[in-house]
Amino acid sequence: MKLYRCARIEGITGLEFREEPDLPPPGPHQVLMKVNASSLNARELLFMRGALGDWLQPNYIPVSDGAGTVIAVGPGVRRVKPGDRVVATFYENWVGGTLPQHSDTLGRGAIVEGMLRETVLLGEEELVAIPEHLSDEEAATLPCAALTAWNALCEHGPLLPGQTVVVQGTGGVSLFALQFAKLFGARVIATSSSDAKLARLTQLGADATINYRSTPRWADAVLEATDGDGADLVVEVGGAATFAESVAATRKGGRISVVGMLTGVPSPGDGFFMRGLSIAPIHVGSRQDFETMNRAIGFHRLKPVIDSTFAFADVPDALRHLESQRHFGKIVILHA
Amino acid sequence: MKLYRCARIEGITGLEFREEPDLPPPGPHQVLMKVNASSLNARELLFMRGALGDWLQPNYIPVSDGAGTVIAVGPGVRRVKPGDRVVATFYENWVGGTLPQHSDTLGRGAIVEGMLRETVLLGEEELVAIPEHLSDEEAATLPCAALTAWNALCEHGPLLPGQTVVVQGTGGVSLFALQFAKLFGARVIATSSSDAKLARLTQLGADATINYRSTPRWADAVLEATDGDGADLVVEVGGAATFAESVAATRKGGRISVVGMLTGVPSPGDGFFMRGLSIAPIHVGSRQDFETMNRAIGFHRLKPVIDSTFAFADVPDALRHLESQRHFGKIVILHA
Amino acid sequence: MKLYRCARIEGITGLEFREEPDLPPPGPHQVLMKVNASSLNARELLFMRGALGDWLQPNYIPVSDGAGTVIAVGPGVRRVKPGDRVVATFYENWVGGTLPQHSDTLGRGAIVEGMLRETVLLGEEELVAIPEHLSDEEAATLPCAALTAWNALCEHGPLLPGQTVVVQGTGGVSLFALQFAKLFGARVIATSSSDAKLARLTQLGADATINYRSTPRWADAVLEATDGDGADLVVEVGGAATFAESVAATRKGGRISVVGMLTGVPSPGDGFFMRGLSIAPIHVGSRQDFETMNRAIGFHRLKPVIDSTFAFADVPDALRHLESQRHFGKIVILHA
Amino acid sequence: MKLYRCARIEGITGLEFREEPDLPPPGPHQVLMKVNASSLNARELLFMRGALGDWLQPNYIPVSDGAGTVIAVGPGVRRVKPGDRVVATFYENWVGGTLPQHSDTLGRGAIVEGMLRETVLLGEEELVAIPEHLSDEEAATLPCAALTAWNALCEHGPLLPGQTVVVQGTGGVSLFALQFAKLFGARVIATSSSDAKLARLTQLGADATINYRSTPRWADAVLEATDGDGADLVVEVGGAATFAESVAATRKGGRISVVGMLTGVPSPGDGFFMRGLSIAPIHVGSRQDFETMNRAIGFHRLKPVIDSTFAFADVPDALRHLESQRHFGKIVILHA
Repeated sequence: MKLYRCARIEGITGLEFREEPDLPPPGPHQVLMKVNASSLNARELLFMRGALGDWLQPNYIPVSDGAGTVIAVGPGVRRVKPGDRVVATFYENWVGGTLPQHSDTLGRGAIVEGMLRETVLLGEEELVAIPEHLSDEEAATLPCAALTAWNALCEHGPLLPGQTVVVQGTGGVSLFALQFAKLFGARVIATSSSDAKLARLTQLGADATINYRSTPRWADAVLEATDGDGADLVVEVGGAATFAESVAATRKGGRISVVGMLTGVPSPGDGFFMRGLSIAPIHVGSRQDFETMNRAIGFHRLKPVIDSTFAFADVPDALRHLESQRHFGKIVILHA
Repeated sequence: MKLYRCARIEGITGLEFREEPDLPPPGPHQVLMKVNASSLNARELLFMRGALGDWLQPNYIPVSDGAGTVIAVGPGVRRVKPGDRVVATFYENWVGGTLPQHSDTLGRGAIVEGMLRETVLLGEEELVAIPEHLSDEEAATLPCAALTAWNALCEHGPLLPGQTVVVQGTGGVSLFALQFAKLFGARVIATSSSDAKLARLTQLGADATINYRSTPRWADAVLEATDGDGADLVVEVGGAATFAESVAATRKGGRISVVGMLTGVPSPGDGFFMRGLSIAPIHVGSRQDFETMNRAIGFHRLKPVIDSTFAFADVPDALRHLESQRHFGKIVILHA
Repeated sequence: MKLYRCARIEGITGLEFREEPDLPPPGPHQVLMKVNASSLNARELLFMRGALGDWLQPNYIPVSDGAGTVIAVGPGVRRVKPGDRVVATFYENWVGGTLPQHSDTLGRGAIVEGMLRETVLLGEEELVAIPEHLSDEEAATLPCAALTAWNALCEHGPLLPGQTVVVQGTGGVSLFALQFAKLFGARVIATSSSDAKLARLTQLGADATINYRSTPRWADAVLEATDGDGADLVVEVGGAATFAESVAATRKGGRISVVGMLTGVPSPGDGFFMRGLSIAPIHVGSRQDFETMNRAIGFHRLKPVIDSTFAFADVPDALRHLESQRHFGKIVILHA
Repeated sequence: MKLYRCARIEGITGLEFREEPDLPPPGPHQVLMKVNASSLNARELLFMRGALGDWLQPNYIPVSDGAGTVIAVGPGVRRVKPGDRVVATFYENWVGGTLPQHSDTLGRGAIVEGMLRETVLLGEEELVAIPEHLSDEEAATLPCAALTAWNALCEHGPLLPGQTVVVQGTGGVSLFALQFAKLFGARVIATSSSDAKLARLTQLGADATINYRSTPRWADAVLEATDGDGADLVVEVGGAATFAESVAATRKGGRISVVGMLTGVPSPGDGFFMRGLSIAPIHVGSRQDFETMNRAIGFHRLKPVIDSTFAFADVPDALRHLESQRHFGKIVILHA
């Protein structure tokens, strides 16, 4: 089996390509899956650099998101069968309800290995069917970014038609949040530092756009676009630089879904209390959330925005492209 | 002031046209509203016939739903001002939260009089702004049927994009439920006994239709259209004849919103428990619900389906048309 | 390994005691558990009689509820270790969230075998720790009856202090519902046909009791005890005979948790709609619910009510005692 | 009518005693209430000092919380009658649901005047019945502090029996939160800087106490008391100094109810995101919340903790006592 390991925690240069023995056959309730495509998230770079603490051991297989085909099932497996097209959940063993105490995420080098490889053994509960209209490359974009966006919109009470949501920039979560919010019948206000990107956000369905470089006090523009009320929901991905603006842009009694603030959470500012905002972090989601999202994706034949696709041999290039932050949409690895 | 009163509880023939003295000026927190249009609901006929019990006293002014213009406000009024275009809430004094113990509905002859008249005095809390793109006739259709449909879809956890809802027939609630469900991104399966009406339901956005005359076991058709799963939600308006079919058509763990079962609630059948369905009656909704709905209507520029419009002098004809059950959409009275 | 099988679907007489080969060692994520105690639920008798349909195949091992000790764990197991005192969940593989499509209950003869045996192989996700102050016999009463009662009180929004709940009779679910409702700070009104049993219910904490034999229209007594308002919640276990009374006893806008209506669901009656009651069946609950319940049981050192304990050799006697309906509290089997 | 006005925004010295003409008789849906007792909250001092901005105009009547007797009702009033013992809601006109856009709080000098006077005119919707076992002085403590505490425990999903809540210090909200949490069956961990006060908190029902002066890293003590898990809920009243400790003391996936952070909201710190905590400010609550709380207070005959009672002539002394922060429980003014 071909795979990549982070041999040294030093960034992209620490990544090594290897050939290793094949996996054993699946045990009870286990599934052997061929990984046909994977996709990259910002967290991969943070892990590779050791930016989230020194608990991560070298030699792990990185990357959480992968899609492919069931090639063998162990005893007792009922949810899938060989030949099924499946995508793996971001968390091991989180079927539904609240995040289990013992659950880990794929590709963190801890307990569950990542997807940068030819085949993987997973529990049957950790797989969902790929919506028919999606290719493996497209499905590989869903486990982390899409599900985070979905739950940012509906974990604490779904967004309603006619409500307003603000999405920030052109990262994977924000693009999915924009696309999903339109399915919910919401009004979407999208921000970016580039007018060219704003034009693409409009094409994806944004009802209004704001260039936060030319309008640094972009909350005012949100208030103006909402008759002075503010947005019902802000999907906050930016961290320190944007949090106070997000608070100012949110309606009295509204909420802020906080995504990916892996480091440095700033003060929300005084408006947070006086205006009665709820703030909740979004931790991707469970398999049942994934299935619910996939029904929406399938019914509306929604297509993820893919920035670029790299061959399995070119993973380091793909990671450098991610690092450059020049992408618009997801970066995908085609494994075969 | 011109108005109608139900002089005798004997049906449409008991209705009398009258001229009465004008209303006094509005007191503190009261609003004098000119009623420009009203709309009819099935309950008006039930009240007129005394079909809901003998508590109803003759001589009441019927009809719950009316829209118009603020012509004067009393001391302390802050929510509206003269000239504002407004529509009244179905319940007096239900701003938000749960239905207050003492709240009554308009046009029940009890405490709050109805809308078949030129002007009415209401509390300032009992009015909502008319979405700009709607005429008074269109706005007059919203208080009962539209808000019932809205809450049938979202009172017990909003419908999600990609979920399936069944709407029954072509009454006002069912047509609004169809239109709203599309705003929520849901799949709609609509039933009717007439292929001609089914064609119109398809035009309104229904994803699938079933003629329940030619397919009396229509639950099977719903199961087939949902890969055997059943609908996530059924908006049950039919009562005894359809309830068991509705239960059979609903997904394991799904729910049934029960609308307008004013008489004769049947057994839900065994499937109800075994398949874990929740059943909840929908009692129109609060003013805050109304405002939330109006934001969706306004943003999507949704137009109510109006069957026909009658002059104020022709109210008895309008009621007979309602009684004939030949309408498709709401029956409206133009007051001036 | 000693065990019982339902050799013939003919009731208690179809049960046979057997000795069979030991189980294999646990596979990945599996746990071998010694069953020290089990407890009986009414459903065991329905299955044994074939009363729920002819899908049940003979030769299954009955009984869903069992508690004991971990004696071995398979590869990858993290949640438990040998020596841990554990109780198994009623549903296989329902960790949290909504009931999975493929989940089955223990002891239904279908996919997962029951607890009337010395040892059992389960997935590590299907076990919860026994609260320290409980014996194995006491813990064996929890999986079905206690968790059903817990979720009847809090699945659709927890009962609040000062609210009123009605519990019916002296079955396992009703006694747990009474005990739990007191932990929630609620007022409990308990019904029974026997004054002697009512006295015991008062000892368990009931704030008011009603003999439904001497007061067949017991809803009136509930209204009287609640200033005419009715109960916020009724835990309905009785079925056809009581359902209309339950509806009449429930507060406007209240709800009815329906438990165990395995056959013959009656009409809720007209009051259901007019008074805006929600009706929801309770399907036991997930492992996360079980853990939440156990924290309450542990903190309050709550003791289940055990009617009687039988030796493993006397299971048929225990089942006959269950059938006689003379018990007050749970019937337990001590396996060793 | 005797009353107090804040003649100058300069603190307690700006308060003046006056005699003014009696109020007019109540208009439609209005109620004239004799104020028998009022109680003080920290916000009164902030307003008097102008600490919350310069929008506040001099000459307002301060104090939000008052209880008394209905002495006259206007036309159309149905909820109360002369002689009823009532307490006023903190917000005007917030019956249920979300906080209305136009609602203000009593005693802010803006639209609705405060309670430091003999009689007051209120809308009939803005009153709730006093639980029978409470005196007027006791009832006067409820509108702000008690309802804030109640909603801190249950606004975003009620606290469950066996869950753990942390309450901070000995202010009015924290004492009510402690007392209410015991009604919910929760475990309460209370903090204070004084061992003498901790002893009184234990008497009120606290299950564990922490002296945050001798244990400044009190989150560690909370973790220790909860097997390393942390509290399910922290009722955060302290602001900047304690917020990071509160985050560290909260269970993965838990929540923090933020109370009274009228100035200076600090950063929640990194743990907030990584541990998935929700943060929500509590804005007292609606009249329906108040009624729900009162049912709990009435059923459990809960008594508010009153620190001291001052005569109406001694309001400045009462305010100085509040300012000294030496009180334990509420400070009450007896008006007659």
